[in-house]
Amino acid sequence: MHTVLLTIRYDGRAYAGWQRQDGFSTVQGCLEDALLRVFDEPIVVHGAGRTDAGVHALRQTAHLRLPRAFPPHGLRAALNGNLPQDIAVVDVRAVPASFHARFSAIGKRYVYRFCNTPVRPVLGRELCHWVRFPMDVERMRAGLAHLVGEHDFAAFASNPGYPRRRGTVRRIDQARIIRRPHGMDLVVQGNGFLYNMVRAIAGTLQRVGTGRMPPERVREILLSRDRRQAGSTAPASGLFLLRVLYPPAAWIADALYEGDADRSGRAPSSPDLGPGPSESH
Amino acid sequence: MHTVLLTIRYDGRAYAGWQRQDGFSTVQGCLEDALLRVFDEPIVVHGAGRTDAGVHALRQTAHLRLPRAFPPHGLRAALNGNLPQDIAVVDVRAVPASFHARFSAIGKRYVYRFCNTPVRPVLGRELCHWVRFPMDVERMRAGLAHLVGEHDFAAFASNPGYPRRRGTVRRIDQARIIRRPHGMDLVVQGNGFLYNMVRAIAGTLQRVGTGRMPPERVREILLSRDRRQAGSTAPASGLFLLRVLYPPAAWIADALYEGDADRSGRAPSSPDLGPGPSESH
Repeated sequence: MHTVLLTIRYDGRAYAGWQRQDGFSTVQGCLEDALLRVFDEPIVVHGAGRTDAGVHALRQTAHLRLPRAFPPHGLRAALNGNLPQDIAVVDVRAVPASFHARFSAIGKRYVYRFCNTPVRPVLGRELCHWVRFPMDVERMRAGLAHLVGEHDFAAFASNPGYPRRRGTVRRIDQARIIRRPHGMDLVVQGNGFLYNMVRAIAGTLQRVGTGRMPPERVREILLSRDRRQAGSTAPASGLFLLRVLYPPAAWIADALYEGDADRSGRAPSSPDLGPGPSESH
Repeated sequence: MHTVLLTIRYDGRAYAGWQRQDGFSTVQGCLEDALLRVFDEPIVVHGAGRTDAGVHALRQTAHLRLPRAFPPHGLRAALNGNLPQDIAVVDVRAVPASFHARFSAIGKRYVYRFCNTPVRPVLGRELCHWVRFPMDVERMRAGLAHLVGEHDFAAFASNPGYPRRRGTVRRIDQARIIRRPHGMDLVVQGNGFLYNMVRAIAGTLQRVGTGRMPPERVREILLSRDRRQAGSTAPASGLFLLRVLYPPAAWIADALYEGDADRSGRAPSSPDLGPGPSESH
């Protein structure tokens, strides 16, 4: 058996989320369908975590066990040839049998992207959340600061409808608001996220940014542990799983095929997702 | 009568181009439908030029004559409220009755965007043209240099099926290849463009960039005036009308509503079209 780690990019619009569900189109389902066509037998894909319906990913990860050796350089191409246009495997590498995409992970990084312009965005409108009313980045930063560290994030978790074995305490290691020409990005990295947690934080910071809530209120909401106190869950269209973090991985074999290494020899990075030109041209 | 200049942004994917055509969804058609709903009478929109099926625009322009005074600040909102999500009026301003969006224009600027990565783009894939084989920017620049200036561009024009009153001589004033993290942009500005001219140039430079054609060949093709010599027409998905150029316009009245002026007081600019975050976060 050969254990392989996939890095997967997807546009979440068309999917009912990551996890395989009968009767719904899902990312895991598409990957398993592609593997079935390539290997002619069912192979289970173990994702690092679920993303919800409509959420995008730049570098989601998943592992699987190949039933037989497969020319490694061909696996990425074989899978991409059997995947729809809105999902791509960007990297395939061999890992030890002990590797588990979810249990080996030590953290995740998400971005929530706001477009903040008076007129609605047109080009790339599906890959952000438009807020018409002006948002103040400094207010958002002041609110966000209350969330860094280890806290009980119950106030920022939707009820997922399944038992929460790990409780609601999580640690946010990094959190930033980055100004962009026509909006801002909320970037959060932590050791784990509750169901809808990033979107609940985004919805709350939207209220802070537009002046409907003082930044200090974020701390009160956090301490309340009451979901009804926080802002509404911001739409999935703005959320991107940026990457899944693993320990410094001497124990992960060399890349079989480093898909993102570009030809200039630069370090691996995501493809440019900014398809539309700006007027600075 | 009140003459008004609209600046319009659109995602061309869903449209059979700019120009109104019975039985097809077009940008002009959507604008005229929106005006009909707002004013309850037919109003003709005069565009600066046609864009083809699938071509995008950041700042297409068009003028029209309003049948009656209309609260100027409300016109943009009224139109946007009656337009589909993939078309937005970003600016409305009063112009003299002598203004004509097409005949007053002195030039246009287009961008053709290549995504040049080994794995196909996923996020924003509809807003670029993917080339899998590595393209050399310096070769493309060397080829492009042959096209700057006034030339007979017959070799780069598809037959539009209508009489070409103005002949096939045009002037390219500026042309650049701009490197981007995962591809490159071809930016061309000129006093006018033949049917499919930018896409034929893009298709030719793609061949130069991938090594299938020497840069010097571009000059030979230009001189041949034979369309069969040039590269194939590159797909519409990568083409954006960036802006229409008018003379320094003291004679254009102040903006009624400068939609693109953002709240920081920066100069007007297009909304950020790069919806997906990059991994530099």
